[in-house]
Amino acid sequence: MKILDVVLTPVAFADPPLLNVMGVHEPYALRSIVQLHCEDGVVGLGESYGDAAFLGEVRKVLPLLPGHDVFDLPGLQRIIAQALAGTVLTDEHGLIGGFSLRKSVSSVFSLFEVACLDAQGHALGRPVVDLLGGRARDAVDFSAYLFYKYGAHPGAEEDSWGEILTPEQLVGAARRMTEEYGFRSIKLKGGVFAPQEETEAVRALADAFPGHPLRIDPNAAWQPATAIGVADELDGVLEYLEDPTPGIEGMAQVAARASMPLATNMCLVNLGDVEPAFRARAVGVLLSDHHFWGGLRATQALSMTCESFGVGLSMHSNSHLGISLAAMVQVAAATPHLTYACDTHWPWKTEDVIAPGALEFSDGAVTVPEGPGLGVEIDADALARGHENFLKCGLTRRDDTTYMRQFVPGFQPNTERW
Amino acid sequence: MKILDVVLTPVAFADPPLLNVMGVHEPYALRSIVQLHCEDGVVGLGESYGDAAFLGEVRKVLPLLPGHDVFDLPGLQRIIAQALAGTVLTDEHGLIGGFSLRKSVSSVFSLFEVACLDAQGHALGRPVVDLLGGRARDAVDFSAYLFYKYGAHPGAEEDSWGEILTPEQLVGAARRMTEEYGFRSIKLKGGVFAPQEETEAVRALADAFPGHPLRIDPNAAWQPATAIGVADELDGVLEYLEDPTPGIEGMAQVAARASMPLATNMCLVNLGDVEPAFRARAVGVLLSDHHFWGGLRATQALSMTCESFGVGLSMHSNSHLGISLAAMVQVAAATPHLTYACDTHWPWKTEDVIAPGALEFSDGAVTVPEGPGLGVEIDADALARGHENFLKCGLTRRDDTTYMRQFVPGFQPNTERW
Repeated sequence: MKILDVVLTPVAFADPPLLNVMGVHEPYALRSIVQLHCEDGVVGLGESYGDAAFLGEVRKVLPLLPGHDVFDLPGLQRIIAQALAGTVLTDEHGLIGGFSLRKSVSSVFSLFEVACLDAQGHALGRPVVDLLGGRARDAVDFSAYLFYKYGAHPGAEEDSWGEILTPEQLVGAARRMTEEYGFRSIKLKGGVFAPQEETEAVRALADAFPGHPLRIDPNAAWQPATAIGVADELDGVLEYLEDPTPGIEGMAQVAARASMPLATNMCLVNLGDVEPAFRARAVGVLLSDHHFWGGLRATQALSMTCESFGVGLSMHSNSHLGISLAAMVQVAAATPHLTYACDTHWPWKTEDVIAPGALEFSDGAVTVPEGPGLGVEIDADALARGHENFLKCGLTRRDDTTYMRQFVPGFQPNTERW
Repeated sequence: MKILDVVLTPVAFADPPLLNVMGVHEPYALRSIVQLHCEDGVVGLGESYGDAAFLGEVRKVLPLLPGHDVFDLPGLQRIIAQALAGTVLTDEHGLIGGFSLRKSVSSVFSLFEVACLDAQGHALGRPVVDLLGGRARDAVDFSAYLFYKYGAHPGAEEDSWGEILTPEQLVGAARRMTEEYGFRSIKLKGGVFAPQEETEAVRALADAFPGHPLRIDPNAAWQPATAIGVADELDGVLEYLEDPTPGIEGMAQVAARASMPLATNMCLVNLGDVEPAFRARAVGVLLSDHHFWGGLRATQALSMTCESFGVGLSMHSNSHLGISLAAMVQVAAATPHLTYACDTHWPWKTEDVIAPGALEFSDGAVTVPEGPGLGVEIDADALARGHENFLKCGLTRRDDTTYMRQFVPGFQPNTERW
C-alpha cells in the first residue's frame, strides 16, 4: 500500500486564555494535519504540533514519502532520521521537557506513523486498536482538565466559562465539566498562584467532589522543599502529584518523601530519561504522549517498561483536535497497563477538523470507534476554516509568556519560583 | 474473524544426545502444535512446549476458544489467566529459570497469540512482521549452536555429527555448521566439563574462526568467583558470556568484574525480574523467548525496556520446529533493537511439521517469508508422523538428568558445581 501524495495543512483553532506556569494561552493554538493519499483511494490522517519549527522539519520529510509503503514503519523512521539530519527541535513553550535529536525524530515520526496506521486500518478494514493488539478496553477514561483562566482575551467577549481564578470559580467549572462530560478524575493545572492558594483550591475541589480522584500539575513551579510541603498537606487528597519540581534529581527528592506517586511529562520525555528516572525512583506515573514518544507503537511498548518497574501509566495531552484524540483513544484502548484516566484538553476546544459524532464523551470516557483506522474523517470545510485561521492569526509558535505580559507586564515564567 | 475449532497435536521429533548442565537430551524432544481453524477457512498455527504439564494447561483453554475473535488478544489473555486459575508450571528441565503464575499464563498465552497473529495475517493478507510494525530487517541473523554430544543414543547408530567432546571435534562441528549455514556468531553450550576445559575449547574456536563472534553458555554451572576467572581469561574473546552463574545477585557480582556483557535467559525470565536485574546491573544482553515472555507483541515491547537501559537484546532458543522458527523470524524482523544474532537449535533438527522451503538459512540468516501470516504451512503427513512419534516414544516431560545416568551412573546436575 504505497503513499501517492501527502498534504500538510497547518491549522489554528480558538483557544481560551488558560493560565499556566509559562503565562497564558494565546487566542489560537496551532496544529499540523497530514493527509496521506495512498493507493486504492485510502487516506491516512495524522495530527501534531503546528509551530513553524516543527512544520519546517515536517516539510523536509514530505517529498520523501511518495512511493513509501505505509506498512514499512521502520523504513519511515530511517527516512525521517536522515531528513532531519541532526536538527534538534526545542521545547519552545517550556512544558514538555528538553528536546534531544531522538525526541525530535520521534516527534516528526509520530505524525506520519499515526497517518500510516490509519491508512493500514483502512486498507485492512480494521480499527487501529486491532493493529495494536486488540481492545484491552472498549472505552477510554479521561480526566476533567481544570485551568485557571481569564474571562476573555483582550478585546474579545467573555466565553461561557468566564473567569476562573478562585476556588469557588474552579469548583463551578469542575461542576460543569463533570456534569457535561461525566469525568471522574479532576486535574488542576497549577503553577499559576502561590502553592498555598493552589493547595486550598485542591481542598475545595476535594470537599465539593468527594470520591473523585484529584491531581494538580504546577509544571515544575515549585522547589523540592515546597513540593514536599504540598505533598504533606495533600496527603490522602491527591491520586498523584504531577511535575511539582524540575528535573529527575528534584523529583526523586520529592518522591522519597511524598505519600502519593509523582507523575511526569517533563522530566522523563524520551528513552534516554528512563534509566536515570527509574533508578532514582523519581517517577510513579509516566504521562505518555504519542506525539513526542514516537507514535502509537512506541507508546504501547513504553507501557511494558513502566509495568516492569511498577510505574503507572497515563497520558499527557496538549491542545489537540479530533485526530489526536482518536489516536489517543486507539492506543489507550490497546494498552492493558494504563492505570489512570488520561488527560485531554477537549472541553476547552470549540472547533475541530473532523466530522462530528465519531468521538463522544460519555461517563468521562470515549468509546473506541468501530470503523476502520482511527475511525474519524476529515471535515473538509472545517479543515479549510482552520487553515484560514492559521494564515490570518499570524502566530508561528506558542509563546504564552510574551502574551501574558499583556495581562501582567514584565511577567516571567514561574518555573521553580516557589 | 472468529475461531471455530482448535486442534492441539503433541509431537515428538528425534533429538541427538546433546550434553548440557542438566545431563543429555533424550532421543525425542516434545512440542505442541496448535491449529486454529477460523472463519473463511483461515488457519492459524502455533508451536510451544510439549511436556504433559504444559499440555494439561493448554487443554484447559481449548474448549474456551471457539467463538473468540483472533483480533482480541487482551480477551485471550483474560481467558487463559482465568482457565489456569493459579496453576504454576515448573521449569522441569532446569534451563529457563523459575516459573511464576505470570510466566505460566504468558507461556500458554504465547502458543495461542502466535496462532492468532498467523490467522490475522492470513485474514488480512499480510505477513506477521507487518502486523508488528513492519520490517526493521529483511533477514534475521542466527548463531551456530555448538553442543558437546555423545556419538549416539544407547542402541542407536551414530549420527552424522558423531561424538563431540574435544576442542578438535568442536572445531570440526563448527566448521561444518558455518560452511553449511553461513553462521557468523558461534555459541558453545557449556556447563558440561570443568571451566578450564571449556575455556580451552573457546580458545580453540577463536583460533579456528578469527573474526567470528563467540559465546559460551554454561547454564549457571559456575560459582561467581569461577565465572569472574573465566571472564578474565576470555577477555577480548567473547562477544558475551551467557548465564555463567545462577541468580541476579551472582550475575551482578560477575557483571561488575567481567569485561564482556553477561547474557541471560535464566535470571531474567519475566516482567517481575526486570527491575531487580536492571537495578543490579546484572545483565548486559537479554535473551528473549516469545514462548515464555508472552508472545510476539510482548517480546517486541521488551526490546524498548532493554533499549531504555542500554541492555542488548537477542533471542533464546529451545529445541523447536519450523512454526516457532517462523515466529522468531517474524518478531525479530519487526524489532529494531535486536543487537545480536539469535539462537536456534536448527542444525540439530532432522524432522519438521511444516512444508519445506519456507525458511532457509543463507549466510547464517533466514529471510522473512513474503507470504501472509507466519509464512509457513503444516505438512499434514509430517505432523501425523510427529504425533505418532509422540505416542510411541513414551516421553511425557524433558528429563535430561535421569537419561544422563544411563551414560554416567549417579549423575547430578552441574548447576553451580564449579
